[in-house]
Amino acid sequence: VVVLVRPRNPLNIGAAARAMRNFGAEHLRLVNPYAVAFREARSAVGASDVLRTAQEFKSVADAVADCVLVVGTTAVRNRALQHQLRRLHDESARAIRTAMNSGRVALLFGSEKTGLTNEDFTHCHWLLHVPTQEKQISMNLGQAVAVCLFGISSAVPDGVPGDEACTESAAVSGEIEKITQALYEALKISGYVKPGNDAVSEKKVRRLMLRFNLQVMDAKVLLGMLRQIVWKLRQAK
Amino acid sequence: VVVLVRPRNPLNIGAAARAMRNFGAEHLRLVNPYAVAFREARSAVGASDVLRTAQEFKSVADAVADCVLVVGTTAVRNRALQHQLRRLHDESARAIRTAMNSGRVALLFGSEKTGLTNEDFTHCHWLLHVPTQEKQISMNLGQAVAVCLFGISSAVPDGVPGDEACTESAAVSGEIEKITQALYEALKISGYVKPGNDAVSEKKVRRLMLRFNLQVMDAKVLLGMLRQIVWKLRQAK
Repeated sequence: VVVLVRPRNPLNIGAAARAMRNFGAEHLRLVNPYAVAFREARSAVGASDVLRTAQEFKSVADAVADCVLVVGTTAVRNRALQHQLRRLHDESARAIRTAMNSGRVALLFGSEKTGLTNEDFTHCHWLLHVPTQEKQISMNLGQAVAVCLFGISSAVPDGVPGDEACTESAAVSGEIEKITQALYEALKISGYVKPGNDAVSEKKVRRLMLRFNLQVMDAKVLLGMLRQIVWKLRQAK
Repeated sequence: VVVLVRPRNPLNIGAAARAMRNFGAEHLRLVNPYAVAFREARSAVGASDVLRTAQEFKSVADAVADCVLVVGTTAVRNRALQHQLRRLHDESARAIRTAMNSGRVALLFGSEKTGLTNEDFTHCHWLLHVPTQEKQISMNLGQAVAVCLFGISSAVPDGVPGDEACTESAAVSGEIEKITQALYEALKISGYVKPGNDAVSEKKVRRLMLRFNLQVMDAKVLLGMLRQIVWKLRQAK
């Protein structure tokens, strides 16, 4: 799944779709695209199935809800990152291919001007970076999509078929987001989260949950626990 | 050196230049570009040094004359190719990086519509192919440049500094072209080349010379021999 967050240029949306067809990515999703750009890209002559079936979402959380792995892309090497940053190379590409054995993987690309925000990053398990020259680190969006998909498609996934069982049960982002929301709710009601400082804490919670690498069953159990706690907390208010 | 042969779209020329800056390629050369496209690309807002210093050539031979290795790109897997075809992968990328120890390497990209012709191929030592899905083998020009340069830039060249001596003396394409022309001239005058069949034979001669992997000194000697032969043949006419 290729997720373009706030894309502004129809040519870049079209270019992303074309690279997806070259390298075999199936689902194009757009988070709050510039409306005109999306319309133009879709109505372009020869628009492919990828473009015609592209879906629009209101938030990154919604766009990645069914994915077992969410990878953000960034040109910046040393933003004060609270995420693991990996170079596009055999090892990181293999990690993505291996995760594809267990479910959908989302690759996030930010807008042409600003890239992904720190808020966007909180939805990511880790960040991917294409090594470039120091002088010119910012890539064209369509080219970045092409390079990343090429790098991923040319890597060989780890493990033999028998190995898949152990990864097959990774929880999708939508489930982890439910846990995040439940825990956050619990933290708010419980007074752990101070009013006026909400945004920071929600991000921290989300990152924490992603680092857990939750399996399906564990996620289900944890969500049940948290919902029970929230229910109790609400009663006690 | 990135050589765009007959490019038609200014956006693609600009995109190629941008990818070159991302991945550290220095010289952009255009063979018979669509004039309007080249003008527009160069006058674009924020045109980079790469674009401003881009050079125009009348022929592929001229554009690659100072290069020790010329690699053509092609989307097609099994055209009736008389050239070695290699996938963009560690091994082929390393071969290019290793050649860069001894001189300039040219990477040729054909026009958006038709790609490189068989005539263009005759100037290449070998051909490079980006592995794609069967259903969609044709890449956008700007994306193809980005993917190839990324693949090459992320490979590690073979050999230690001490090894360079053995490759440092590879003859540049301009020298090999002189040999090709001299030999071809000799073949024409000598009657080996039949009138009406010129084009085919010139290509064959060029490919033959490229396969020799001539070193600087050997090329010099061979050229001297052939020029002498031509001189003699002309006298005898």
